[in-house]
Amino acid sequence: MIKAGIIGASGYAGSEVLRFLLNHPEVEVVGVSAHSDANKKVSELYPSFYQICDLPFLEDEDEVIARADVIFAGLPAGISEPFAQKTLDQNKKFIDLGADFRLDNPEDYAFWYGKKYENSALHQQQVYGLPETHRNEIKQASLIGNPGCYPTSVQLGLYPIMLPHLYANKHIIVNSASGVTGAGKKLTEDTHFTKTNESFHPYKAGNHRHTPEIEQELTKMSGEAIHITFVPHLLPVNRGIVSTMYIDLKKDIKLEDIYKLYQETYQDEQFVRVLPLGKQADLKFVTYTNYCDISLHMDERNHTLIVVSTIDNMVKGTAGQAIQNMNLMFGLKENTGLNYVGPSF
Amino acid sequence: MIKAGIIGASGYAGSEVLRFLLNHPEVEVVGVSAHSDANKKVSELYPSFYQICDLPFLEDEDEVIARADVIFAGLPAGISEPFAQKTLDQNKKFIDLGADFRLDNPEDYAFWYGKKYENSALHQQQVYGLPETHRNEIKQASLIGNPGCYPTSVQLGLYPIMLPHLYANKHIIVNSASGVTGAGKKLTEDTHFTKTNESFHPYKAGNHRHTPEIEQELTKMSGEAIHITFVPHLLPVNRGIVSTMYIDLKKDIKLEDIYKLYQETYQDEQFVRVLPLGKQADLKFVTYTNYCDISLHMDERNHTLIVVSTIDNMVKGTAGQAIQNMNLMFGLKENTGLNYVGPSF
Amino acid sequence: MIKAGIIGASGYAGSEVLRFLLNHPEVEVVGVSAHSDANKKVSELYPSFYQICDLPFLEDEDEVIARADVIFAGLPAGISEPFAQKTLDQNKKFIDLGADFRLDNPEDYAFWYGKKYENSALHQQQVYGLPETHRNEIKQASLIGNPGCYPTSVQLGLYPIMLPHLYANKHIIVNSASGVTGAGKKLTEDTHFTKTNESFHPYKAGNHRHTPEIEQELTKMSGEAIHITFVPHLLPVNRGIVSTMYIDLKKDIKLEDIYKLYQETYQDEQFVRVLPLGKQADLKFVTYTNYCDISLHMDERNHTLIVVSTIDNMVKGTAGQAIQNMNLMFGLKENTGLNYVGPSF
Amino acid sequence: MIKAGIIGASGYAGSEVLRFLLNHPEVEVVGVSAHSDANKKVSELYPSFYQICDLPFLEDEDEVIARADVIFAGLPAGISEPFAQKTLDQNKKFIDLGADFRLDNPEDYAFWYGKKYENSALHQQQVYGLPETHRNEIKQASLIGNPGCYPTSVQLGLYPIMLPHLYANKHIIVNSASGVTGAGKKLTEDTHFTKTNESFHPYKAGNHRHTPEIEQELTKMSGEAIHITFVPHLLPVNRGIVSTMYIDLKKDIKLEDIYKLYQETYQDEQFVRVLPLGKQADLKFVTYTNYCDISLHMDERNHTLIVVSTIDNMVKGTAGQAIQNMNLMFGLKENTGLNYVGPSF
Repeated sequence: MIKAGIIGASGYAGSEVLRFLLNHPEVEVVGVSAHSDANKKVSELYPSFYQICDLPFLEDEDEVIARADVIFAGLPAGISEPFAQKTLDQNKKFIDLGADFRLDNPEDYAFWYGKKYENSALHQQQVYGLPETHRNEIKQASLIGNPGCYPTSVQLGLYPIMLPHLYANKHIIVNSASGVTGAGKKLTEDTHFTKTNESFHPYKAGNHRHTPEIEQELTKMSGEAIHITFVPHLLPVNRGIVSTMYIDLKKDIKLEDIYKLYQETYQDEQFVRVLPLGKQADLKFVTYTNYCDISLHMDERNHTLIVVSTIDNMVKGTAGQAIQNMNLMFGLKENTGLNYVGPSF
Repeated sequence: MIKAGIIGASGYAGSEVLRFLLNHPEVEVVGVSAHSDANKKVSELYPSFYQICDLPFLEDEDEVIARADVIFAGLPAGISEPFAQKTLDQNKKFIDLGADFRLDNPEDYAFWYGKKYENSALHQQQVYGLPETHRNEIKQASLIGNPGCYPTSVQLGLYPIMLPHLYANKHIIVNSASGVTGAGKKLTEDTHFTKTNESFHPYKAGNHRHTPEIEQELTKMSGEAIHITFVPHLLPVNRGIVSTMYIDLKKDIKLEDIYKLYQETYQDEQFVRVLPLGKQADLKFVTYTNYCDISLHMDERNHTLIVVSTIDNMVKGTAGQAIQNMNLMFGLKENTGLNYVGPSF
Repeated sequence: MIKAGIIGASGYAGSEVLRFLLNHPEVEVVGVSAHSDANKKVSELYPSFYQICDLPFLEDEDEVIARADVIFAGLPAGISEPFAQKTLDQNKKFIDLGADFRLDNPEDYAFWYGKKYENSALHQQQVYGLPETHRNEIKQASLIGNPGCYPTSVQLGLYPIMLPHLYANKHIIVNSASGVTGAGKKLTEDTHFTKTNESFHPYKAGNHRHTPEIEQELTKMSGEAIHITFVPHLLPVNRGIVSTMYIDLKKDIKLEDIYKLYQETYQDEQFVRVLPLGKQADLKFVTYTNYCDISLHMDERNHTLIVVSTIDNMVKGTAGQAIQNMNLMFGLKENTGLNYVGPSF
Repeated sequence: MIKAGIIGASGYAGSEVLRFLLNHPEVEVVGVSAHSDANKKVSELYPSFYQICDLPFLEDEDEVIARADVIFAGLPAGISEPFAQKTLDQNKKFIDLGADFRLDNPEDYAFWYGKKYENSALHQQQVYGLPETHRNEIKQASLIGNPGCYPTSVQLGLYPIMLPHLYANKHIIVNSASGVTGAGKKLTEDTHFTKTNESFHPYKAGNHRHTPEIEQELTKMSGEAIHITFVPHLLPVNRGIVSTMYIDLKKDIKLEDIYKLYQETYQDEQFVRVLPLGKQADLKFVTYTNYCDISLHMDERNHTLIVVSTIDNMVKGTAGQAIQNMNLMFGLKENTGLNYVGPSF
């Protein structure tokens, strides 16, 4: 059994990882910590765990690190470095659910997050944890930057066309919408029920922090600098992300060829489903699962490819992907604990 | 591996049983049938199954029965008898998700469903499939009437006070609310999104068909005739039932004593959680799981006990309970395939 | 034109009154105040008012009182007395949206609200503002306790059977559900979108503060002490209350006779609609309007009358009723500013 | 009083026009017709009208035309011509809520709707009913093609930058999302509550019928051929459209300048609100009203302007706009019957 611990466990990301760990046949949860909720039981904060997991949140992260083989961290931006270092120093694995180990370029981190990388050596070891594009590195890694939720949906949606440079324009429009769990546990005006229910609006239009992460990875895939205009919207549902992406295509490329390319690219990927042409991806059919569904559409008149990619932001966008990474890092079957067949309604 | 088949598999009940069977480690699904959707694939109707279960719906129930050790039937009222008989004739087990094998009294069935029991001998063998109250019979049974969703929530909520006759009045008020999956897959004015969303209303007030089933079982529990006034409401959520029940208590009974009684009654039941006094049951914390959560409250001024019982209508109210019954009938651990830790949000 | 002011204007009740005043042809809004949001514009808090009403919230209530002919107060419990006194001292009208002038008995107020009536003389002048039952008093009143939302739905639903004593039992079960606006603007765990959406649960079961108000008025109607067991639930919609009430009837009373009685009782009331037998009241069809819809049902087997009463908690339950009271107090047609035909979807 | 009639009145568009007409001080509704629902009362289909408008749906459109000064038509595509001709022959006004009189080019109509213009002379008289861009023509018109809902949101969002040719690219990306009322009253799998609730997906990506209408009008505004890639999505709310539009800007144009241009363009338009920079348009704040709210954002890195435009699809997108057109055609104040201050929650 793998001994797993979670620090910063009381937020949505941490508690969802806990849920997946409890559903995982090869893992034992050895401790969870959370400063703000120290000494409360997990099930006090999240009553769905009542009589299933009544562990207390510890105050001391070190104790959790000491007990565990692998640490999942659901911490605020900018404070993960020392915990990661301690974990690595004990020859253990660290999977960061936040943004502290995703960006390669310290300047990107400084610009978008307003903070600095203090421990540069540590960042040399970080591996970007999107299994479909970095599987081999992940298997060797001890320190994972688990991808952001939006970036996961966008990268899986665009990956097949990046390397062959099918785009006619290196500037891609990404229009996304996310369920409210994406905004986390914190009470805000914008997540108050009466405000969000029967509502829909963009936020951080053109300047969301997930932008550099997406550009970094698309650029790696294609080998040339890719730019995106990214506008997320808040969707009045609990879970799920739909990213609708607009790509000017090079001439004479047919939708059928694109479709074949996507099928080939993902033929061995359990968690990416390329829907038959004529179908549309719908977040309903991926929620509570680790799947990413992709549908492909063409505006023939303008030779514009429309890719729609949908995930559950808390699963493939957070906790499921973290488990997938853990499985790879520990040599387990990649889908262990992730095979849950999700609800249709 | 148990070989399982589903007839009438294309409705919500059948498809949810299919989902639970696919998540069950000891079961192989050997066939599904559905007249109206014959030859379509499961995943065409329910895209969440895409690339997971692409079985076709067969037209012929007999073929499914021939292949299977256990049949789950999601058929309309009044047509299950011959399929059950065929299944039993082949020394196999039959779990009816509908109402055809729940009522002991043929007159109740005739009155509330407007149909007759044709095969009386068959009904002698039927066992009411609520494990918490009929476990031993279920273990021996070949023919199960799987309980209705509302009746499950009501019975588990009232069971502890029935035998000791704590009620001062044999007439109990049951006010329930159910998510829209309870109304099934059929398109109706009342389940059109724009009508149901931001709406709430009672239906079949005082004359819902689940009434006799509830009264039959409460009467069995208490040993004297119990009557209920039952009013269900349609709730603008996908899943879940909350039943709020009002019981005039005999004098001098304290809430704390009631609470102890509930704890004792359910101390060995994994799937019934009696919440601490002061907490309130919330459907949010049972959806997608087989749990029934119960909270207890007292109107001291009127010496009225208020019991709130909540389940997922599609799980403990339908498919999960059917699996629980199957496990009992086949000598498996009762919770096999049902231990999924459900989402908190 | 009537000059109207609102103190405590930044909460949901106050802002909804403001909206109705802006839609009223005979009213000019002369000032609004709100301590916590002083100097902000109304439209900053509630962007639907942008370019329609950009008044600032004043800090000083006295200034609003000085300018106005009528004051609406949306204050927290326990602080309205001095403002009411000042308003009356200036020979102006005061309509309190809160609970400070609803209860006749100071002991009820002390028991349920934990506060005292300081200015007893003032409470001698208070009139309970339910037009359908107190119209003549309201016309003469200067100080109105505008009814609570739940109490409005319950009283209108039960009024016709109270005076003729059709009930066989003076203890009535009231099961209610309210949309989330009923919980107000304050951010709480329970009104966080991800918690409330796809959820349903009771709260304050058996001990909600609206209980004494309901009992007080039912008792007045019937002339004998009436008791209720009242359990409210939180409904995942923005607006609307449905109260489902269970009344043991005296013998030999038929539903048809009850129906006639309701029709006669409300034949001259524009804002109470008694639905034809066989229909069920649905909050959908009253939201955004001042209507109360009532449907009547009978559990013949138990001789239990089921009355379903639905209103918009923010309109007939708060702001619309306050306007209706103002119209009566100022000799306007009772429905002025309230004739808006509401949306069907 | 203007005598108004509605043909094809039983659908969502027709019934919403009826609601606005009932709220209009200068209009008398003299008849409504609907084949499929002939002889039913309006309030049977839409219970919110109970005791307010209990008119029967007539079977014969001619009778409605004979009684009225102005006809609103909520008919399926392709059958409006003869009714329009009859109405004009009687020197009356005809406002078509459908798509039959929106497209100037018969080939566009043939291509996108698969039908032909039979009565070419009639189409010479049609005026496109977007008041903000065609006000003077509307005042003179007898035959109005009331704009589509998506096209209204898109045109108002892009109008200010079209004439001055601020775009660097004549191909504009339009990503829209609409509430479910946009799909109308018909029962479909896709509008079944359990499917739509907690869901989000695109539909008709790149080939929605509103595309040619948008391109036609943008092209008129700019004087050069504009192309759009248009992808609508289905939003799990009842009402409202948000269109998020991506425009490559010519060099050296600042957001502040764009903002000023929008303010100037719309300074005399009551129903278009340009939000302050830094705010984001939200459908919540326009629902149930005739407002269009616009917010402006810039992706500076890519010099891409992001315009967000939101309306209530049933009001500014259908019925409210039709009333606005009627007001102009009859010389009333343009906002008569449209000044309702909408709800904030």
